[in-house]
Amino acid sequence: MTTVSTPDGPLAPDLSVTDRTRLRRMRARGRTDRADLHAVLDAGRICHLGVVVDGSPRVLPTTYGRDGNTLYLHGSSGASSLLAAPAGEICVTVTHVDGLVLSRSANHHSVNFRCAMIYGVPRPVTGRDEKLHGLRTVVENIAPGQWDATRAPTRKEIAETAVLALPLDEASVKIRQGGPGDDPEDHALDVWAGVVPVRTTYGEPVPDPALRPGIPVPGHILATFQSG
Amino acid sequence: MTTVSTPDGPLAPDLSVTDRTRLRRMRARGRTDRADLHAVLDAGRICHLGVVVDGSPRVLPTTYGRDGNTLYLHGSSGASSLLAAPAGEICVTVTHVDGLVLSRSANHHSVNFRCAMIYGVPRPVTGRDEKLHGLRTVVENIAPGQWDATRAPTRKEIAETAVLALPLDEASVKIRQGGPGDDPEDHALDVWAGVVPVRTTYGEPVPDPALRPGIPVPGHILATFQSG
Repeated sequence: MTTVSTPDGPLAPDLSVTDRTRLRRMRARGRTDRADLHAVLDAGRICHLGVVVDGSPRVLPTTYGRDGNTLYLHGSSGASSLLAAPAGEICVTVTHVDGLVLSRSANHHSVNFRCAMIYGVPRPVTGRDEKLHGLRTVVENIAPGQWDATRAPTRKEIAETAVLALPLDEASVKIRQGGPGDDPEDHALDVWAGVVPVRTTYGEPVPDPALRPGIPVPGHILATFQSG
Repeated sequence: MTTVSTPDGPLAPDLSVTDRTRLRRMRARGRTDRADLHAVLDAGRICHLGVVVDGSPRVLPTTYGRDGNTLYLHGSSGASSLLAAPAGEICVTVTHVDGLVLSRSANHHSVNFRCAMIYGVPRPVTGRDEKLHGLRTVVENIAPGQWDATRAPTRKEIAETAVLALPLDEASVKIRQGGPGDDPEDHALDVWAGVVPVRTTYGEPVPDPALRPGIPVPGHILATFQSG
């Protein structure tokens, strides 16, 4: 993200390494272990999807879900939907911000983060069973337990929804952790340096105002979003 | 993001509306007021930058800062840096997740969010003064007050850093707020529905282990990141 260099561990040659997933800078931040990729993806709910439209990039946030070595995305199946028929390759990026790295010099300010980038040509999912499986995977990644707790999609709803499957074959993971990477001579400065931790937290579930009386927040929701 | 429809307010024709910023779906979620754009950008620290490389999209997280109608980005000026010389147009997306919308049907699960997308051809900033101004804007967006509190960049550091200026001319803002958009007939279901609020919070600043003794956390950092 910026210009700090904190070694983050060994490179384990597991994920496919291509010209673009081979880190051109800051190789020490690269992770190629599939478990790291899965961990970054499973910790997130929103990805940023990159597509090319008329030669220009578009980046849009959307939900996703992972099942094994497949990432599922969904969107409207309408003719104008970017997800209904993406042209060629896409890039899916999931980023967690873990800390703001405040250094003694302006130049070394940075961000602690975990980031996964996946490249590939997504496969439109057309079979009803896999479509349902993909949608379940996405919904369950928003809140585990919700798929079975809620009304299943109708035939019409399924038809109106496009589902894409992206294999987790070409991907890179970058992780930055730790303190500021100040130049040694700057350590003598009378300037505070450190990290401000950044966390995602969840508030108490807010019932729909139209919720029928007497329906408590289900245990699976409380268990996932317990504050702490 | 998904398939819910909660009207979020009137469309005020302020920002430039083009084919791609004109919302093709969910127009009620669109905002074209410049103040909304600035608010979404100023509330964030990380954007997702989309570029096209060899015809394929790449999406990478990076820091940014806004000054008036200009968004500044920075990166390495090295030959392999995507930020040193992006080919043509870029897309910058800033997203805040505010809530997980849990509906009575699987189909209507959604996310409350604020999202800004900016399109344009960035201008490489080459003059020393504007380069410094751009870097200041980026650093100050990470933590206000840090630019003046820390060592200024050296001539070499400035030369090694690429700064891009992107005008906030072509942009769209989408905001989803509120509860689940369940179909009326689903309100009779014995299923909980509501929103789980999502917040970004900051922990106590963690001093660099190498920090010289006797340097307290500065007031400007405490003021910005006070937990609450």
